[in-house]
Amino acid sequence: MRPQDVIRKKRDRQELSPDEIRYFVDGVTTGRIADYQISALLMAVYLNGMTQAEQQALTEAMLLSGNILDFSDLPKPKADKHSTGGVGDKTSLLIAPLVAACGVCVPMISGRGLGHTGGTLDKLESIPGFRVNLSTAEFRKVLDDVGYAMAGQTAELAPADKKMYALRDATSTVEAIPLIVASIISKKGAAGLDAMVIDVKVGNGAFMREADRAEALAHALVSTGNSCGIRTRALLTDMNQPLGRAVGNSLEVLECIEILRGDMKEGARPVLDLSLELSAHMLVLANVEQSLKSALQRLQGVLSSGDALECLRRNITAQGGDARVCDAPADFLPLVSEPVKVESARSGFITRVDTTEIGHTIAAIGGGRVRIEDQVDPTVGFVAESKLGEQVIAGETIGVVYCADVSKAREAAARISAAYEIGDAPPTTLELIKEVVNE
Amino acid sequence: MRPQDVIRKKRDRQELSPDEIRYFVDGVTTGRIADYQISALLMAVYLNGMTQAEQQALTEAMLLSGNILDFSDLPKPKADKHSTGGVGDKTSLLIAPLVAACGVCVPMISGRGLGHTGGTLDKLESIPGFRVNLSTAEFRKVLDDVGYAMAGQTAELAPADKKMYALRDATSTVEAIPLIVASIISKKGAAGLDAMVIDVKVGNGAFMREADRAEALAHALVSTGNSCGIRTRALLTDMNQPLGRAVGNSLEVLECIEILRGDMKEGARPVLDLSLELSAHMLVLANVEQSLKSALQRLQGVLSSGDALECLRRNITAQGGDARVCDAPADFLPLVSEPVKVESARSGFITRVDTTEIGHTIAAIGGGRVRIEDQVDPTVGFVAESKLGEQVIAGETIGVVYCADVSKAREAAARISAAYEIGDAPPTTLELIKEVVNE
Repeated sequence: MRPQDVIRKKRDRQELSPDEIRYFVDGVTTGRIADYQISALLMAVYLNGMTQAEQQALTEAMLLSGNILDFSDLPKPKADKHSTGGVGDKTSLLIAPLVAACGVCVPMISGRGLGHTGGTLDKLESIPGFRVNLSTAEFRKVLDDVGYAMAGQTAELAPADKKMYALRDATSTVEAIPLIVASIISKKGAAGLDAMVIDVKVGNGAFMREADRAEALAHALVSTGNSCGIRTRALLTDMNQPLGRAVGNSLEVLECIEILRGDMKEGARPVLDLSLELSAHMLVLANVEQSLKSALQRLQGVLSSGDALECLRRNITAQGGDARVCDAPADFLPLVSEPVKVESARSGFITRVDTTEIGHTIAAIGGGRVRIEDQVDPTVGFVAESKLGEQVIAGETIGVVYCADVSKAREAAARISAAYEIGDAPPTTLELIKEVVNE
Repeated sequence: MRPQDVIRKKRDRQELSPDEIRYFVDGVTTGRIADYQISALLMAVYLNGMTQAEQQALTEAMLLSGNILDFSDLPKPKADKHSTGGVGDKTSLLIAPLVAACGVCVPMISGRGLGHTGGTLDKLESIPGFRVNLSTAEFRKVLDDVGYAMAGQTAELAPADKKMYALRDATSTVEAIPLIVASIISKKGAAGLDAMVIDVKVGNGAFMREADRAEALAHALVSTGNSCGIRTRALLTDMNQPLGRAVGNSLEVLECIEILRGDMKEGARPVLDLSLELSAHMLVLANVEQSLKSALQRLQGVLSSGDALECLRRNITAQGGDARVCDAPADFLPLVSEPVKVESARSGFITRVDTTEIGHTIAAIGGGRVRIEDQVDPTVGFVAESKLGEQVIAGETIGVVYCADVSKAREAAARISAAYEIGDAPPTTLELIKEVVNE
């Protein structure tokens, strides 16, 4: 077998055998297959797709390309949540302590922000001292002691995915469903999960803007996850505006801690609602609750009792962070004191929010990464004070931008103001959760 | 502009602008764009195609990626022939001396064999002492003194093509019409031609097996060649059996010298017929003859007078070879004395010859290259003694294999015997020249 024969077959829309896929993925892992051959295959997969059998074989080969974390000695069920990426999507920071407080182990392998989307690791690093580069032994110890641990993908975990992901980013082959599925499920499978809930974002701030593509992705993720032995469910959720109020690393952590402390601002409610819903599905899939209803009650319990906040506090301490952030978040998170107002350009109803544009704007002033090698400034961000469908008047403050460089903040405020479309009639209401995909 | 933005656009079937194409080709030439990004674009072009405008811009950018040979101080018109590649296709060895003997300058940049096809440079190197690696100054001197020169592509000539061709070979993106066109025309354009005839092979031994694909390629070559200022014509010619009798380097040179000496074996007639026809089109395009008929008469003249043979003799001497090969070719070419017979498996008519299989068989026993780094043994080859449509009886010798290793020769003879399909009725006759494409 030669790499170019596998490429030719996919180029010609023939189905690759599991052996051919394993041969290729092994070559990626060992470096025996050249980067230019990998990227040619990635483009052929992007344009010609993959059958369910190919997608399954690709996922399994990537899953087995490195170490598999084995937490079977920990007595609790293991569950995780994954999001396809959005703007202001900070639910991981709530879900992990909520679910862990209900007795489910959450070994969460997270990523960094790139382009218009944020990443959980960047958000966590806003907390002074917080370490996300844990060794496997440290990760296991935090998981066992606290109930959840959060870290980046190590070089040993699904190394074929790491290599292929970097090439996809450089060759515009990110948005291919079989490649997305294999990337997500291989990493989650290598993390030794029993159950997994996937938040598939849909809307103008999501990678999948069209509902039918997002739905196809959700079905592919669920079927492949289940075939890999992970009980998997996907929720299609709205990404036509930032989730909650805050966009930007410190600001998002602040919003989450306020929620766990019971100090939630009303605009942050969708963050809590979505976090509870995703968490409830995790508890059901992990078999610690029989129904979504009982799961939601239990989650409300650990939220109001302070057990979830306590879980967060213990995790922060275990991962080297300053847990006083849980008591006085605004005092211990790096923040900018004087924000710049974003004003409504005219009077009317907010009919559309260009969510990707907001994400890019915040990234461009340092709140995210335009390029993979960029440094992130945790203080930079945006807080939305108005939501889709709200009535506003011209000149009204619809949000604020945080950035130490005031001229950059002003530029960003103008870009964000332009990202809000104001019309004469309110838009049709968008549901936060559009669909639950079980198979 | 970023490489991945250009890739994305082609991936999404949008037309690339000339600026975007120049940016990408410049990046290929300078090495600023990574190989894995080049190959992703190549696969996207393979699968999504290119418009005429894109193909033109790609060709021009590649043509201008290196030095342009300038022979405008040589007073004669400059013309060349290019073949898309076949088995036993040795017409270049005849056309160059025939056309040069008629007063047209032939600066021929040729290639090496790979896979089932042979290459002119390998054939020439069968002649003891013959050098194909000429400096630009040497090439010009031979061209001026003899009327034609034959050499390989230097690093300075269309370097973007050299880089892209190597990547295409490794990523199964060779057979894309826009890439073939840009590769051929950019090299020929950089060689300073006035006129060019392209022999587009069609049939089971050609890269383009289907007539409609070959015809599309011919039209694309002609229109792009003309747009680049080279008067261009293409002939669609048959490649459903080896051209002439000989396949293999020394044997093909032997066949050509016999033809120029007037010692032609009857089975070699198609080589002469096709060479004369292609040469006649070159003379017409170069404006040294008004009609194909007068051009053919003139070519017959330089053949029977010995002027063409004399031209070959002078070229061989000028390029360091032993010109005695022109007087006693069998004595001065490296040959194997004892060939192994290929026998007909049954009685009947030869209804199909798997020409690609014959090419691969000869390459596999050393007569060509399975991999680009393989060494070629000039003595290895096959001589066909029967043609498509001929009646044969079981056990009759239909050809012979030459290889010093007799066990390899026997294996090859068995493979080649199996490549001849014998049926009960003669097949429909195939025309050697199927079509002349002028626009």
